[in-house]
Amino acid sequence: MSNKQIDRQRLMTFLSDFGDRDIYVGIMKGVIAQINPRLTVIDLTHQIQPQDIAAARFCLMNAYPYFPVGTVHLAVVDPGVGSKRRAIAVEFAQGFLVGPDNGIFSGVLSQSPAIAAVELTNLNYWRTSQPSNTFHGRDIFAPVAASLASGVPLKQLGQEINPASLVKLDIAECQQTSNGVVGCIQYIDRFGNLASNIPASYVQGKTWYVQAAGLSIPGCKTYGDVSVGERLALVGSHGWVEIAINSGNARSKLQLDWQEPLQVVLT
Amino acid sequence: MSNKQIDRQRLMTFLSDFGDRDIYVGIMKGVIAQINPRLTVIDLTHQIQPQDIAAARFCLMNAYPYFPVGTVHLAVVDPGVGSKRRAIAVEFAQGFLVGPDNGIFSGVLSQSPAIAAVELTNLNYWRTSQPSNTFHGRDIFAPVAASLASGVPLKQLGQEINPASLVKLDIAECQQTSNGVVGCIQYIDRFGNLASNIPASYVQGKTWYVQAAGLSIPGCKTYGDVSVGERLALVGSHGWVEIAINSGNARSKLQLDWQEPLQVVLT
Amino acid sequence: MSNKQIDRQRLMTFLSDFGDRDIYVGIMKGVIAQINPRLTVIDLTHQIQPQDIAAARFCLMNAYPYFPVGTVHLAVVDPGVGSKRRAIAVEFAQGFLVGPDNGIFSGVLSQSPAIAAVELTNLNYWRTSQPSNTFHGRDIFAPVAASLASGVPLKQLGQEINPASLVKLDIAECQQTSNGVVGCIQYIDRFGNLASNIPASYVQGKTWYVQAAGLSIPGCKTYGDVSVGERLALVGSHGWVEIAINSGNARSKLQLDWQEPLQVVLT
Repeated sequence: MSNKQIDRQRLMTFLSDFGDRDIYVGIMKGVIAQINPRLTVIDLTHQIQPQDIAAARFCLMNAYPYFPVGTVHLAVVDPGVGSKRRAIAVEFAQGFLVGPDNGIFSGVLSQSPAIAAVELTNLNYWRTSQPSNTFHGRDIFAPVAASLASGVPLKQLGQEINPASLVKLDIAECQQTSNGVVGCIQYIDRFGNLASNIPASYVQGKTWYVQAAGLSIPGCKTYGDVSVGERLALVGSHGWVEIAINSGNARSKLQLDWQEPLQVVLT
Repeated sequence: MSNKQIDRQRLMTFLSDFGDRDIYVGIMKGVIAQINPRLTVIDLTHQIQPQDIAAARFCLMNAYPYFPVGTVHLAVVDPGVGSKRRAIAVEFAQGFLVGPDNGIFSGVLSQSPAIAAVELTNLNYWRTSQPSNTFHGRDIFAPVAASLASGVPLKQLGQEINPASLVKLDIAECQQTSNGVVGCIQYIDRFGNLASNIPASYVQGKTWYVQAAGLSIPGCKTYGDVSVGERLALVGSHGWVEIAINSGNARSKLQLDWQEPLQVVLT
Repeated sequence: MSNKQIDRQRLMTFLSDFGDRDIYVGIMKGVIAQINPRLTVIDLTHQIQPQDIAAARFCLMNAYPYFPVGTVHLAVVDPGVGSKRRAIAVEFAQGFLVGPDNGIFSGVLSQSPAIAAVELTNLNYWRTSQPSNTFHGRDIFAPVAASLASGVPLKQLGQEINPASLVKLDIAECQQTSNGVVGCIQYIDRFGNLASNIPASYVQGKTWYVQAAGLSIPGCKTYGDVSVGERLALVGSHGWVEIAINSGNARSKLQLDWQEPLQVVLT
């Protein structure tokens, strides 16, 4: 392989709900290495709750902007494996997406629309023409993503499909009100920080507070704006309004959970 | 290092019971990088239960077929570290195995026999001639595996030993009966799927069900063949008959555990 | 990029308290790849307890000796993010350190002193001149560390500062007594082994036992020196006197915890 070809190689990311107790992730990386041992694969996370498509959607949507243009994002959260759901590859301005057509990519594509999409019907790029009914990650998605990252054109991977036909996962959109925005919690991180579906743009340069769980929570710039143990709202690292406790766990202290409502009030 | 030498470099995999809270895995990768910073190391898992040789054996046996020929598999689940158990490297048709001689490789070698084996007695390939009594992974296995992956011949690593002398870990074999096969559960994955020791070949193309925990469980092709929450048996992704719950956890729902018996009945 | 330039690339390590459920680690690796897709990043651990600076200090201090000279160690355990704490890069004999100035590097630097240090004030090496108030890892530390690992000189990264001004985290030093050494437990690993702050040098070649939790614990060479389930003291893999149970968990069996006292008695 010439240096030019090496330079044309694309980075890959990999997200799944396979966890780290099992060898599924390692096996898929072995399949990728069999196709092209020089590819670099960066793990996004493999700790998506089993079959939690909404969490996978949120993570992919927040991660893709930080990777080089042309990166191939491989994602396998696939409760429908073995059923009729389509296996797809999608091209968008920032790179490529490979995985099941169940909505995991709909967050990315709501921000940066699909340019082209194919159903993965070309068996030449599968690991075997008789894939396992339970592990398309190994037999279809990993080898196809590795081929794409090695320079195989998207349209060689299968039948072109209309990007408008891709499955979308509807997350309730936040709603502007007379004095603010009503939204809900769409993601909770390891520290117990509660990320809403309200983007930073609603609060930037304004004075504001959050109303949630019957409490009033001051809009701040940084954790240190309140004392240790105190609650605050701020723009989190992913660019969404977030509820947190300085040096504490907002989820357990405030007893707030996924999809629960909150309101930004501008003052 | 010339391009030809780079091409001759072998991929490495790494499996252990070190977990991810500690820095043991990172330190071993540092030792590998000190010997050859260009080697690629793919983690199989580091979440083997502490000292669970049987689980390590199962994982290695199911993973090796998916890696390129010549891959060096480094595995450290080593309750006997510091005692008289041998440190070994083994060559087999698909690559190499490096780790303690305690049976972790006996699953791989039952499928693809050893071609040659050495005890790691050549101190020139250790990190230090006075290895820690508690961390042979860092001081012996990592540097030896990195040397092997960089092209050092197996027989330079130590005293040749008879492959027949390698420690075997006996897992009860499944037994054919008049109307099926009797076996046991040999591995439980993160989703609670129960993998038996009955290979797919016994059920392929047949009509069958599983008898376990006093229950009758239908033999299916895919999770979707039963309703959500219903139990099923199918050929799992590793090629063994497996018990699962569609979108659920079979281990907790059926109260079945490691080594517990099950029976495939052909109808 | 010429071969010579590739050879001049430095290895990176990465330690944080970000865990593996979230995509923070993956995002930082994306930022690193945007700057230099050829860099290799080795994870030390991302399972430091949230904001536990002392544990990060212990892990970094024990890991750095096993990496090639010139390695860039990126560490983000950063309870003060968004406050006035300094962002720093430090050169020492074995490589470089990049992260917050809160004491996480003080263990490394107590063993191998700083040669030079800078505050990361040069915005040209940040990802953005308006960094997030909650995620300096992504916006400052990752891009700066990637630049350093790609050959940018330390002093280009910001204002030089006096290494003596770097924040130190004081761990109680062990104290020699008439018949031994008094110390405390400074780290507990996944197996429940209890690492003290007493270095191996105090016990090597001597006969000794440990007094802790009202118990007498024999000084041994290896786990196998006592029966399964029995307690022992030995020099652990990181070079500190450690309390363990052969094939068991010393933390839960002995009810000993962080910072609790122990005494080595020479006989």
